[in-house]
Amino acid sequence: RNYSDPSKKFIKFNDVVEQRRAEARRSLVVQVNSESSFSELYGYCSKYAPIKDVYHYRNTEKEHFMLIEFETEENVKEVLQVCSSHQKDLDVMPIQSPFLWFKAAANNKETYKVPSSKSLATKDGITVIDDDILFEELLNCETMSNQMQLLYERTKLNDLGIRLRFMVARQFEVIFKSLYANAVVHPFGSSVNGFGKMGCDLDLVLTNDLTEEMSGAGRRLVFQEKRVEGGARAGGGGASARQLELLGALLELRVPGAAAVRRVLAARVPILKCAHVLAAASVDLCCTNTSGVYMSELLWMFGSLDPRVRPLTFAVRRWATAVGLTNPHPGRWITNFPLTLMVLFFLQQKRKTGFILPSVRFLVSKAGKQDIRIAEENINCTFLRDLNKLPQETYGQCEEDLETLLLQFFEFYAQFDFQEKAISINEGVPVRKPNALPLYIVNPLEQALNVSRNVSYEECERLKLEVRNAAWQLEAELEGKKEEDWGLLGLIERKGSRGLKKLLR
Amino acid sequence: RNYSDPSKKFIKFNDVVEQRRAEARRSLVVQVNSESSFSELYGYCSKYAPIKDVYHYRNTEKEHFMLIEFETEENVKEVLQVCSSHQKDLDVMPIQSPFLWFKAAANNKETYKVPSSKSLATKDGITVIDDDILFEELLNCETMSNQMQLLYERTKLNDLGIRLRFMVARQFEVIFKSLYANAVVHPFGSSVNGFGKMGCDLDLVLTNDLTEEMSGAGRRLVFQEKRVEGGARAGGGGASARQLELLGALLELRVPGAAAVRRVLAARVPILKCAHVLAAASVDLCCTNTSGVYMSELLWMFGSLDPRVRPLTFAVRRWATAVGLTNPHPGRWITNFPLTLMVLFFLQQKRKTGFILPSVRFLVSKAGKQDIRIAEENINCTFLRDLNKLPQETYGQCEEDLETLLLQFFEFYAQFDFQEKAISINEGVPVRKPNALPLYIVNPLEQALNVSRNVSYEECERLKLEVRNAAWQLEAELEGKKEEDWGLLGLIERKGSRGLKKLLR
Ligand SMILES: Nc1nc2c(ncn2[C@@H]2O[C@H](COP(=O)(O)OP(=O)(O)OP(=O)(O)O)[C@@H](O)[C@H]2O)c(=O)[nH]1
Ligand SMILES: Nc1nc2c(ncn2[C@@H]2O[C@H](COP(=O)(O)OP(=O)(O)OP(=O)(O)O)[C@@H](O)[C@H]2O)c(=O)[nH]1
Ligand SMILES: [Mg+2]
Ligand SMILES: [Mg+2]
Repeated sequence: RNYSDPSKKFIKFNDVVEQRRAEARRSLVVQVNSESSFSELYGYCSKYAPIKDVYHYRNTEKEHFMLIEFETEENVKEVLQVCSSHQKDLDVMPIQSPFLWFKAAANNKETYKVPSSKSLATKDGITVIDDDILFEELLNCETMSNQMQLLYERTKLNDLGIRLRFMVARQFEVIFKSLYANAVVHPFGSSVNGFGKMGCDLDLVLTNDLTEEMSGAGRRLVFQEKRVEGGARAGGGGASARQLELLGALLELRVPGAAAVRRVLAARVPILKCAHVLAAASVDLCCTNTSGVYMSELLWMFGSLDPRVRPLTFAVRRWATAVGLTNPHPGRWITNFPLTLMVLFFLQQKRKTGFILPSVRFLVSKAGKQDIRIAEENINCTFLRDLNKLPQETYGQCEEDLETLLLQFFEFYAQFDFQEKAISINEGVPVRKPNALPLYIVNPLEQALNVSRNVSYEECERLKLEVRNAAWQLEAELEGKKEEDWGLLGLIERKGSRGLKKLLR
Repeated sequence: RNYSDPSKKFIKFNDVVEQRRAEARRSLVVQVNSESSFSELYGYCSKYAPIKDVYHYRNTEKEHFMLIEFETEENVKEVLQVCSSHQKDLDVMPIQSPFLWFKAAANNKETYKVPSSKSLATKDGITVIDDDILFEELLNCETMSNQMQLLYERTKLNDLGIRLRFMVARQFEVIFKSLYANAVVHPFGSSVNGFGKMGCDLDLVLTNDLTEEMSGAGRRLVFQEKRVEGGARAGGGGASARQLELLGALLELRVPGAAAVRRVLAARVPILKCAHVLAAASVDLCCTNTSGVYMSELLWMFGSLDPRVRPLTFAVRRWATAVGLTNPHPGRWITNFPLTLMVLFFLQQKRKTGFILPSVRFLVSKAGKQDIRIAEENINCTFLRDLNKLPQETYGQCEEDLETLLLQFFEFYAQFDFQEKAISINEGVPVRKPNALPLYIVNPLEQALNVSRNVSYEECERLKLEVRNAAWQLEAELEGKKEEDWGLLGLIERKGSRGLKKLLR
């Protein structure tokens, strides 16, 4: 594994996203009876348009679905035109979206031929790996670095998971299309930032920014707009809260698959939560929060700069869950996003051989005209987008393996002066804390904000304690020999269940 | 005036509606500075597409608007593509609809040539005639029949009024398009039934009925729908009430021009009320009430069968308002719709020379296969649609003038046995009342229902009294000579203001 192959070109985040969006536009999700509906569905659809691939998955209710990717977007339109229908039912206001189901044939005699070369690209493609299997595999690894790499590979959000998330975004776009000019629904957060694990939530943002052309100065006919009192991003009660309530009603009453819709209007960025039962994802939807997308871009870039970043982050996050530092519910504790910033910050520290990751400040200094992005509320999200332009000596400059980095991570934070210093990936070095909050992690895009302002004194103390524990544990490990829960296993097994598991093995 | 010209062919209601809908699709409504913006707007738009006609009007706030009809629907699309823009404003979520405004030119030097043959088709085209002017004109009529004809011509909903109503329907359709498959918004009630006066409210129904093709049996890919608990037309709390609430939020937050949105969920057919400030109309929107559209078709057909029907109805309705029988607010009194049925019923009575209007039963008996219509809740709305197929001896068979018919109307109801009999335009003759409600007027499409079930005993007594008064007044008139408030004037001036008006003249 060569950590800084000079021939390897970086892809841009926007290109990856555009590719995923295009993929979603040429795909349909079809509910079927079972895995074995494949040949019938394949035969039926391929009569009308060429199929690229078919992916099978089940949702939480164990219903079966196939995601079909056609060759072109036009294919999907044609297929929908000639093969799709609505159920005639007066109790339902029909709607069209890329989520369908496959009705039984009227006459059973029709048979479909499927080329023998064709089979399902995935079966049960979004099942989260069982802990027992994972731990067994980890137990059988050669080294702890291998364990970390394996944990990453086995638990990261896979291709089908990403496809489905873009299908949901596409569905929302299709349904909101006539309500918002130029509406685009963007996945952000862990679904696209490269740090997502299987089953992570799906963060979506509805934007309808206008292109220069759409607001052309020479054009004199201007669409009448709907002006509602209050600011666009204002919290409770304002226009944006009401827009969000409207979106909530739309999810509840019009979006197939959306269920259990809840409004969280009190948050800094008000959101709608819902379950998407057809795509097996929990969705958080917000409005006009494009800085969230740029944040995801930034994290994605850091993750792609060096192949050790993501496995290391996965190990740290899994450890944090195991020791109870993080927790699926919101509260006075740290969450995955600030934890990720802590890992990035650690990797920005200067080593004898150079840097693994550059600072955001450095990325900003390398930005060109084409990198200028100003999000709502004038948030400056300008930084270099094309990583190929980054001097090679500014990243990936050291040969430490994952195991060593993990130990160094714990040692670094075991000695970090949380009392006086803030963590800032903008600077890449500890900076003075501007206030007395227990944990201070600078928001990289809004540097006046602390992304861990919710963390209590007690939780911060626990964090300090647990990094020290982890450092001791790993140091002891390096001296001893492989035990039953050697290496990573000792860090990521839930403390409570460890004794029991040992007995059962 | 020949009341039964055999060469005159009747147009079908659906053809009229389709024509109006097509007109709306090739039209735009543009807010302008003033009437004199005409040449600039004309010059600007006609550079891009051929214009058929431009109509000017003002809304209640005295803002100026131009309705532009282009030659084709394609023209509108082109014009929107090349000349329209959005205002860049982060506080507003942009939306596209056929309502626009005309921005000032960036450079004032551009001049536009308008062919001298071209001028505004209307100026101030939807202003309601002032009562003083109307009464002056009525005073100067030759006969009372002339007065009735004039009242009709001067107060009926005019072409531009109808165009604007179809523009609002079109706007709703465009905005709801992606939310409801095959969504059609139909004007119904007095906006299209031929009995509407200038400024009457705009009744709209959102339907999204599927065509046979859209629910084709052979098609096996079926769109996932959104099923919400409760019946489609159920009153409060059910699915339809929530759908209506969603529509209310859409009107409030997304539809340019819609203001003062109120929900009336308790009614038999729950509705949303709003003002459309750009089209200067009060709107009542409901869902899936297609029987309302068929009702409008039925009334429209009766109105077009004989040219005396509408002027007579206008006189009766104006009289009812003047004596306070009807009233803009809902309550325990009669409304325009049942009053219209009373006029139709009166005209269905057999005369020496034959019938002026046939019964609904007769129209049903002449219906063919192509006339079958089943509305929601299995309401049978089947009746003959093509009036050309009606035998000539079944309608328009008498030469009585309007004046005579009006007198006969009052005499007929002065003697009507409201105690024992119900009014049924289905039968065309009085039928037994099935219950003891003071006034019983059978709903022609749902014969188990009484459209005047809300009318109280007191209001019914007032109705009886006022028709007797009117009959006496007209009989006296016919014997006497033209006075200051002769003929129709005596019937339609508000009682309170009559004395005062006389003094001021
Ligand atoms: N500016 C800012 N952005 C945040 C904050 N918390 C979360 N975000 C952004 O919102 C995105 C989604 O938030 P989360 O869903 O909580 O985190 P995530 O990165 O998606 O990780 P998981 O959902 O836990 O897998 C993050 O990736 C950040 O870009 C915050 O406190 N401040
Ligand atoms: N079945 C039924 N339909 C009604 C009833 N009231 C009104 N309608 C229908 O709904 C339409 C609109 O009602 P309204 O707006 O009250 O009456 P309108 O005929 O439009 O007359 P104005 O609005 O007063 O000009 C009517 O034309 C009827 O077709 C009723 O009690 N029963
Ligand atoms: Mg997330
Ligand atoms: Mg009406």
